[in-house]
Formats: sequence, structure tokens, C-alpha cells
Amino acid sequence: MTRERLYLFDTTLRDGQQTQGVDFSLEDKTRIAKALDALGLDYIEGGWPGANPTDSDFFAQAPRTRATFTAFGMTKRAGRSAANDEVLAAVMNAGTPAVCLVGKTHDFHVETALGIGLDENLENIRASIAHIVAEGREALFDAEHFFDGLRANPDYALACVKAAFEAGARWVVLCDTNGGALPHDVRKGVMQVIEAGVPGERLGIHTHNDTENAVANSLVAVAAGARQVQGTLNGLGERCGNANLVSLIPTLLLKEPYASRFEIGVDAAALASLTRTSRLLDDILNRVPNRAAPYVGASAFTHKAGLHASAILKDPTTYEHIPPERVGNVRNVPMSNQAGQSNLRERLEAAGLPVAKGDPRLAAILTDVKQREDRGYAYDSAEASFDLVARRHLGQLPRFFEVERYRVTVDRRYNALHEMITVSEAVVVVNIGDERLMSVSDSVDETGSDQGPVNALSRALAKDLGPYQAAIEDLHLVDFRVRITNGGTEAVTRVLVDSEDAQGRRWSTVGVSANIVDASFQALVDAITWKLIRDGVQPVAAPR
Amino acid sequence: MTRERLYLFDTTLRDGQQTQGVDFSLEDKTRIAKALDALGLDYIEGGWPGANPTDSDFFAQAPRTRATFTAFGMTKRAGRSAANDEVLAAVMNAGTPAVCLVGKTHDFHVETALGIGLDENLENIRASIAHIVAEGREALFDAEHFFDGLRANPDYALACVKAAFEAGARWVVLCDTNGGALPHDVRKGVMQVIEAGVPGERLGIHTHNDTENAVANSLVAVAAGARQVQGTLNGLGERCGNANLVSLIPTLLLKEPYASRFEIGVDAAALASLTRTSRLLDDILNRVPNRAAPYVGASAFTHKAGLHASAILKDPTTYEHIPPERVGNVRNVPMSNQAGQSNLRERLEAAGLPVAKGDPRLAAILTDVKQREDRGYAYDSAEASFDLVARRHLGQLPRFFEVERYRVTVDRRYNALHEMITVSEAVVVVNIGDERLMSVSDSVDETGSDQGPVNALSRALAKDLGPYQAAIEDLHLVDFRVRITNGGTEAVTRVLVDSEDAQGRRWSTVGVSANIVDASFQALVDAITWKLIRDGVQPVAAPR
Repeated sequence: MTRERLYLFDTTLRDGQQTQGVDFSLEDKTRIAKALDALGLDYIEGGWPGANPTDSDFFAQAPRTRATFTAFGMTKRAGRSAANDEVLAAVMNAGTPAVCLVGKTHDFHVETALGIGLDENLENIRASIAHIVAEGREALFDAEHFFDGLRANPDYALACVKAAFEAGARWVVLCDTNGGALPHDVRKGVMQVIEAGVPGERLGIHTHNDTENAVANSLVAVAAGARQVQGTLNGLGERCGNANLVSLIPTLLLKEPYASRFEIGVDAAALASLTRTSRLLDDILNRVPNRAAPYVGASAFTHKAGLHASAILKDPTTYEHIPPERVGNVRNVPMSNQAGQSNLRERLEAAGLPVAKGDPRLAAILTDVKQREDRGYAYDSAEASFDLVARRHLGQLPRFFEVERYRVTVDRRYNALHEMITVSEAVVVVNIGDERLMSVSDSVDETGSDQGPVNALSRALAKDLGPYQAAIEDLHLVDFRVRITNGGTEAVTRVLVDSEDAQGRRWSTVGVSANIVDASFQALVDAITWKLIRDGVQPVAAPR
Repeated sequence: MTRERLYLFDTTLRDGQQTQGVDFSLEDKTRIAKALDALGLDYIEGGWPGANPTDSDFFAQAPRTRATFTAFGMTKRAGRSAANDEVLAAVMNAGTPAVCLVGKTHDFHVETALGIGLDENLENIRASIAHIVAEGREALFDAEHFFDGLRANPDYALACVKAAFEAGARWVVLCDTNGGALPHDVRKGVMQVIEAGVPGERLGIHTHNDTENAVANSLVAVAAGARQVQGTLNGLGERCGNANLVSLIPTLLLKEPYASRFEIGVDAAALASLTRTSRLLDDILNRVPNRAAPYVGASAFTHKAGLHASAILKDPTTYEHIPPERVGNVRNVPMSNQAGQSNLRERLEAAGLPVAKGDPRLAAILTDVKQREDRGYAYDSAEASFDLVARRHLGQLPRFFEVERYRVTVDRRYNALHEMITVSEAVVVVNIGDERLMSVSDSVDETGSDQGPVNALSRALAKDLGPYQAAIEDLHLVDFRVRITNGGTEAVTRVLVDSEDAQGRRWSTVGVSANIVDASFQALVDAITWKLIRDGVQPVAAPR
């Protein structure tokens, strides 16, 4: 049986840009477009040419994509022809193979928001779509507020989508603009449109997550006959976001009846890059990835419950609905008071620390981890620091060096030129074997600007570690996260440090203290220690 | 027409505890149980008595609730009677009015995970449920992996749920334990069970969010006949989480056909506290609330797109699917390069700064905000700092004081008793009018422990602000968030500070610098300045 083609339309660069706190640069847009294209999406909506300088620049130097590159705009305004509407002209002038125009289909909006007559709006839709087609482009019509309009005035809403279809729109996209429609509303709406004469293979669906049903609304629309699905990476978008393509893609490829009935542009190799693509977007946006994200979240295949974890060890299919590697994710059995000793052994073995079943040190490690987590440490997020705690209990934590003292100073003052400047400086005294090394560093970078006390401390610490210096030359800090948290009865600061080395290894360490510099110091020392262990560096013997 | 009763079962304290990184204390559990009860939920599952010390302690001093307090456990093991199974005994001994036991219904799990015969498992279900009923408690049966089991061996899966029903279970709860079922699977499953003889008013649904369909799966189960919905606050739970009751409750109360067909225990007043309850859970867990959360997120009624924002000013129903106040949320029109001048005027007016349409300062403010956001500032999250930027342009920013210089020191060293200690100290020099005030503070709290450099700086700054001192006495810092972000070409540190005063006002300010102390300093100065303005304090005139 041949499978029907189902098309995926990405609007991360347009509707996704409406996310609160998101503001793509030109470079961001280019990187994201390339990632979307590599994933195998059919359409990439790049933005609204003419609406803001970034979008205009982006279209002026649009990346070459296999996907159909699409410009967004709105139907022409009343009282002028499509060719003479300068807002529409800016959209057309972007020169994209496809153009998607949003137009009203809800009578209330036509009268309240636009303040024009219902017939006038119909004519605007018809003329605008016909203009795109006449210019030799593929036309898409975004039927704004379609499901609300269908409820309020079904004849009018259907007349609007039929007008777009008859004017030559390749796709009529039913939009749940407010996000208020539920799955049964969407199913009924798609069926009514098909009954009214717009065939399913010309229908798209565009949903929002305001009731947490955007993914389900997309699936039900496909089941009812729609053949284009619009969404965004990681569900970015206005208010609560758009339908999340990162959740929809694996469902369409791996779950029945979709997998057997439909063919999409994403293949198995691209699916296996899905986790990486999702995290890339978070990297670009400097967002913390959502641990609980379906398929791609760090917790999506994390088995915390003791009963689940022990069954997983027998057979992973017991508590996993798909194999994590299909979407490029990994299984994870974290430490916590809920986890049993079997989880812990599994974890230690993966870290190269095999321990026999029933070894009393397993219980000691669990108790210690629990007590430390009570004080604010977070070992689920800092696996390298966890390894060090376990190694201490197992007698496998080398003592490379000891920091005897440090002092960090931040000074903000006027310099001789009466400019306000800030200067940070750190002094560190380290004992290695019978050597005592004293280092000092400020934190001024190549442009002369101050990088702060943690940077100064990190530099002073890494400046002279004597015999270990070669091993830590390539270590650098890639992220640094700080939270005020509760350590027993009082607030403490938790610092998580992500480090990376020249081999591309990345590891996370944690420090906790009421003092942010001190918490950072602990995490930095852990990061160095973990690297020395992993590189197989031998400790210098301490003096007797 | 009388409405049917639909029951809500909360498992935040049991399945929600399986969330990676979540570890409730006894006090947390008590606070959450009270919040759940105030919301009007029908069942509160408190945990698994006997599984860990916190859960055992919690049941020993369980809060009095109007909701039916429920203990969780598993069906008795093979080879012993229900009365002689010590795991089940610990659950019964918690003395709750209701007991919910999980049991296998998928043949593969019975054989692989339990390693017992299919008939033995059936008998374990029957005997365990009968034991609860005989003890005079309400019995619930959690049918684990029901939808997978139904696909693999329908006769056996149905036999398991019928065994529980016939043994007297008040509720047979169909669990999608792996989270892999899609809405059409759930609808079909519920219908098959009803057809097999378990009536809908005895059926519950328990879903997970692994395909982002947990809410939709719950709704479709209700439509198919189930009358109990299980979920958690904010969708906490193992892996990707459970069905999110915070999303389900407003849909059930405000959307058709649910609103007309069903009655739930949550009333309109409780619904209006939903946003507060959701944030309370995040507060307890020290999590950053999800901005994009349906109904209760800070972005749920945020209108960023220029077209949307201008329509909202005409009539809020144009782009809102429900009025935000119904769920205790608020409308928000944020600043950004996408926002037009109409958004900005609306925002300024709300802050008590009316500006005439077309005033050229509007464009100047937008440009300045955009440039600052490019450098790393985040005004969507720091509205108080935004107000100050706007006030500067409008000539309405009083100059209360000027910090001439500061110095912060962090020292870690051994004291005379050879204990490792850390000491932070800050010196601040402030000019107010023609007065020059010099303050010094360390950051040692009442227990003698050091609170770090930002605390020392904040104390020194607030120690002597001369004529303003009275106004800032009640100001305190409630949260402090730090992110490394991109300011143009280089990494900078963004500090967001949340402050509160005795009137319960809460406001957020932002500082950006490569230096964390300096970024904190900016946010602290903004926090003080905003408070002085809001309290109507008059600035002391600067010397000529």
C-alpha cells in the first residue's frame, strides 16, 4: 500500500519569534533555517518581509534551502488593489517561491478589528491569493480564527476558505489563532471544510497550545483529512506556543496508524538528530532545555522510580514507549532517595566504577548523596561531581592538590581619566606534594574589559598547577548557572558549572554555599579534579 | 439537565515525586496537600507508606483534608495471602480512607518483570482488592500498562480489570504507564472496557505526557465514559510528567461540552486561585515557573505580535480564548522590537506614565530598549528596570544618590582555630546631595555564616542612605537569578533580582556586566530606586 504524503510546515522563524523573550538575530535565523532544512521539513516560513529590519535583511540574504522557503504577510487592505498594497508588495518583493497570507474568517474580527464589510474581506482574500498565483508563486492562506469563526458564523467562515481555495491557494490552513479549540472542535471543523468542497490534500492545520492540546489538535486534523501540519521547534510561539514539531515528528514516524499511512520528509537519520536539533535551538536562545520535553528531554527516558529502574535493567521495553536512540536521546537512571542500590550500581558501572552487589559502600554513597542534596547539591544535574562523591567512598579519589587559601577582590571606582571602571583580582595559594604555589590573576580580557571575580578565581587557580598544568590547559568553562535554593533551613547559592575540553567532552559540576564565590570555587575544583582523573593523570604524593 | 459528577484524583505527592530533581520534604508534602485540598480536588494520593521515611512520616501525621486521602501501594506478591504481605500491610496501616494498588495487566510484564504465572497475577489482583474492601476502605486499582496490555493480549488485560471490578474496586484506573498511547488508542481502550462490563462511572484514566498528549488523552477518556481523571499540579511526574491538572481544570470548567455536562469539585473561586496554586508549587520546588504554561503561565495572556496587541486594545476577546482573571492570571503586553508604539503607550500608562500618541520619545525608548536587549538586558522579565529606562527618557527619573565607589572582598582561609572560613566584606561610598556617606558591611548572618559578596554589597548599600533610609528598611531580596548570556560579541552575566517590601509588592530588576558583582550592583540600585519612586520619596537636591 502506498503511503500518502503529509507535509510539515515550520514557522519557528515567524510565529516562534512571537515567544516572549525571544528575539532572533539575523545569524540566529540563518542557523535555525539550516537546521530545519537538514531535518527534512517541507516548508520554512522565514518571517514577515517589511515588518522589521531583521526579517527584511534575512530575506535579502536568504539561505538556499531544499525546503520551500516561504514569506508571511497579510491579505491586501480594503480600498486598493493587491498590486498597489505596499505591505503586500514588500512580501512579494522578498521573491520566495511560496507566500503565506493571513486573512480574517471570523465575522466579529472583520467588523471589530478591521472595521470593514464582510464582502469586502472576502474580496480581499480572493484578490490577494489570485495575485500571488498570477505572479507564479505558490499561495498559502492562513485562515485566522477559523474555528471561532466557524462556530459564530459557519456560512461566512466556510465562504472565506472556499474563496481562497477557488482563487488558487495550494494550501488553505485552518488556524486556531487563540488556541482555544479542543480536539473535537478541530475534527468537526476539518470535516465541515472538506464537506464544503475544499479537499483534505489542500488543507493545513495551525494550532496553539493554550489548552495544552496543540499536538493532539494537529493529530486529529490529520486523522480527519488535513495534509499539512504547521508548528515550531520546541513549541515556540505566541503566548503558550505553537504545535511542537519536535513532539509531532517522532509520533508521525513511529506510531500507528500514522507510520503506515503517511510519508513525511523526515527520514530515520534525521529523526536520530532530533534531540540535537532541539537542544541547538535552546543553545541559540540561551534557554535551559526543558528536561520533561517529550522524546528529547533529558528526563524523557529517565527512570527514577525504584520499581521502574529495576525492570529497565531486565528489559528496557518494560518502561520505554520507544527506544531513546531513535530520536537521538539516551536512557538515564539518576541518583535520588527513590532510587535503589541497583540504579546506583548501574550508574557507577557506566562511570567505570564496578561495585559488587550488596557492597555496604553502596548504602553509604546513597546516604551521603541524600544528605548533600538536602543541603542544596543537585547531582542529577552534576554527574561529574556525583562521580567524585562516589569515588571518595570507594577510595578512588586521588588528592591532586589542596587550596590553602584564596582572596578575591572586586573594585569599582573612577580611574585617573575619571572613567568608572571595575577591576577583579584573585590570589590563590595551592599545595601540591611539598610545593607551595602562589598565583594571582585579574580578569581583564583581550579587549580590556573586566570579566568578574569567578573568572579571576578560575584563572588564578588554573594559572599554575605545576605538574598538572599540561592536562588542564584545554579546559574551559562553557556555562555557569546560579540559583538561590534551600539548604536545610537557610537559603544557599547553588552554582552549576559546565566545562569542556579540546576532545569535546562536556561535564557538569556543582558547588553549594551561602557565598557565590565559594560555591563557584567548589564547582571549579571539582571540574579540574574530574578532568585530571579522566585524563589518567597521576597525583603527586603528599608530603609525609 | 443535571450534570454528571466527574472526579479529580491528584497524584502530585506520589507520581509527581518521581520527577527528576524533585524530592519533597515532609513540610513540602503538607503544604502541597493543603493547597490541593483548598483547590477542591476529590482525592489526594499522599505517597507510598513504607517505601521511604518521608512518605511513612507523612502518613503518620497526615493533614486533615476534605478530599479523600489515599495511600498508594502494589498488589500482594505471589505465595502469600493479602493479610500476610508486609508491603501491603504497611500501606493498610497508614489508615487512609482509600487505598490505591497498582497491578500488572500486560502479560509480558507479568512474565518478564514479575516472573509469575498469568493466573497467579489475576488472583493477586482479586485477593488484594477484596482485602481492602473487607477492611472497610475504598479500593482503587491502577491497571499498569493497560493500553499496551490491551494491544498485546486483550483478553488478559480485560480479565485483569474485570477481576478488580468484581472484587469490589470503587475505581478501576486505566494507566498509560509508558506514556506511549495516543488519543485514538485511549478512546478505543475505554470503550472496550465499558463493553466488557466495567461501567464508565467506575473507570478512571491515568496518563503520561511522553507524546505530549496527556491532557488530550484524559479528555478523550472522559468523552468515552471514564469518570475519574488522575493527574498532577503543573504536570509533574516520572519522565515527561503526568496529565497536568492545572491545564485540565479550566478546560473542564470553562469549555464545552465539558462545562455543561459535568460537575467537578473545583468552583469558580478556587479556579481564580489556580495561577497562585501553580506558582506555589514552583516556589516550594524552587523552580522557575514555565512562562508558556497553558492558562497560568506568565506568557499565557501576553500579546507580543503588534497586530494582536493593537486588536487587544480594542477588545480583549479578539485574541484571548478565556478572560485571564477566571484563572487568576493577568494580561500582559511586553516590550520588544516586535511591539509597536501602541503597546508601549499602553505599558507606560499602566505604570502611571501617560504619553501622547506620536510623541517622539516613544521611538527613542523603543530604540534604547532594543539596544540594551542586544547587550543582554531582559526587560520582559524586569519590568521595574524597564520603567526606569522609560522614566529617564521622559525626564521623570529622580537622581536620589550616586555611588562614588565600592569594593568587595571574599577571603577564604584558616582561622586561628585552624577552621576553614570564608569572609565577605563590602565598602560603599555614596553621595547624596552634598553629603558623602561611607558604609562597610560584612555578610555574616545570625548563625555566624557568611552570605557572600552580593549580600555584603547589598547590606553596605542599604546601611546608610541617609534621608532615604526609612523608605528602604522593609525592602528585601527574594530571588536572584544569574545567566551567562550573549551581549553582542562576548559573553556577559545577566542578574535578575526580585525584591519585595512590607506591603507585599514584588518587583524585578536587571543588571548586565561581564562581572557578576557589578551586574548585581546595577540590579540592586534599580531595585532601591524603583522603591523610592513608588513610595513617592522626594530626592535631595544635588549640590550645584
